Amino acid sequence: MNRAGSLEVATRGQGLYEITDRVARWLADDPVQTGLLTMFIQHTSASLSIQENADPDVVHDLNAFFSRIVPEDDRLYRHTIEGPDDMPAHIRSALTLTQLSIPVVDGRMALGTWQGIYVFEHRSAPHRRKVVLQLMG
Amino acid sequence: MNRAGSLEVATRGQGLYEITDRVARWLADDPVQTGLLTMFIQHTSASLSIQENADPDVVHDLNAFFSRIVPEDDRLYRHTIEGPDDMPAHIRSALTLTQLSIPVVDGRMALGTWQGIYVFEHRSAPHRRKVVLQLMG
Amino acid sequence: MNRAGSLEVATRGQGLYEITDRVARWLADDPVQTGLLTMFIQHTSASLSIQENADPDVVHDLNAFFSRIVPEDDRLYRHTIEGPDDMPAHIRSALTLTQLSIPVVDGRMALGTWQGIYVFEHRSAPHRRKVVLQLMG
Repeated sequence: MNRAGSLEVATRGQGLYEITDRVARWLADDPVQTGLLTMFIQHTSASLSIQENADPDVVHDLNAFFSRIVPEDDRLYRHTIEGPDDMPAHIRSALTLTQLSIPVVDGRMALGTWQGIYVFEHRSAPHRRKVVLQLMG
Repeated sequence: MNRAGSLEVATRGQGLYEITDRVARWLADDPVQTGLLTMFIQHTSASLSIQENADPDVVHDLNAFFSRIVPEDDRLYRHTIEGPDDMPAHIRSALTLTQLSIPVVDGRMALGTWQGIYVFEHRSAPHRRKVVLQLMG
Repeated sequence: MNRAGSLEVATRGQGLYEITDRVARWLADDPVQTGLLTMFIQHTSASLSIQENADPDVVHDLNAFFSRIVPEDDRLYRHTIEGPDDMPAHIRSALTLTQLSIPVVDGRMALGTWQGIYVFEHRSAPHRRKVVLQLMG
């Protein structure tokens, strides 16, 4: 088995958008018993992260941390032409993940109990983000 | 070849715990000539990292850096119910790796001379951490 | 298909060095229709990143951010024997990527329009960095 697909994720400003169920459904369409599922986001101002999906305050605090550590302040950057949130978005992407692979065991992603898969949007305006999926096994 | 397994790693507070030898032994049990070995940690308050394993001061300084940049300070976070070290642990996880894949070449992981594989524990109390392993080739 | 290779990348001090074309040529030598291409850098003081390759100011600002957030200041570190830029290099590596996998779709890496693959050099002196490549599909 070796197949590829993609998801489009609509975002509405900075924050984390859970995609666990959508990825699980794509896998379930034509699963493997054992293998590897890879997600790759085709952007440099949005990224991927695994986080706790039990308490929504976790993803709120995570987003707030990245806003503090990578401030929107044009004096810090040369690349300002695309808006005050663009260069910080590239840096936040570099600090998180563009790609994420999850082992498939017994036909399902081997996620821990509280783990959710998220698209991490780093820009202020709504965007449509594309995540490429690839499964091998 | 396509197989999966797991390691359980006992931690004793914040810091890095090397697992290179344990992963190498799991690979050697039934190796492939060329392929890909993936590690995935099933937690959101501990992570994975590749670091220099020659001088123990390196992993000490790395842990100290993360303590400075992601402080334990309840005023910074909404998610405080699981203790002052919990939300910082989630953030430190997001800044490092939940998953790590290493090419297998000539039947061994293609690690550089000084590279070691570590579980990075971000919580203060001892934990038992589960790392899923998956090999394809 | 399951093959491995490597690239050697000559760096000239801190900054990002694009390798997209070299990786694409290695893939094109003997491609797969659908699969997974993995890059792994065999060092702990240089790393990998995907960034925008349209405006060179982006990679300049990215490097400047890492210099601010992980300062060269011997008072902060125990591991100082290899020079003031060595421990910061290990930390910057931990904050970025040692490994990166990209899905292959229709015989090509599924990169977004503006995405480039970079070796991120964290040391001041010139180095020769080795990136292991592995392709499965």
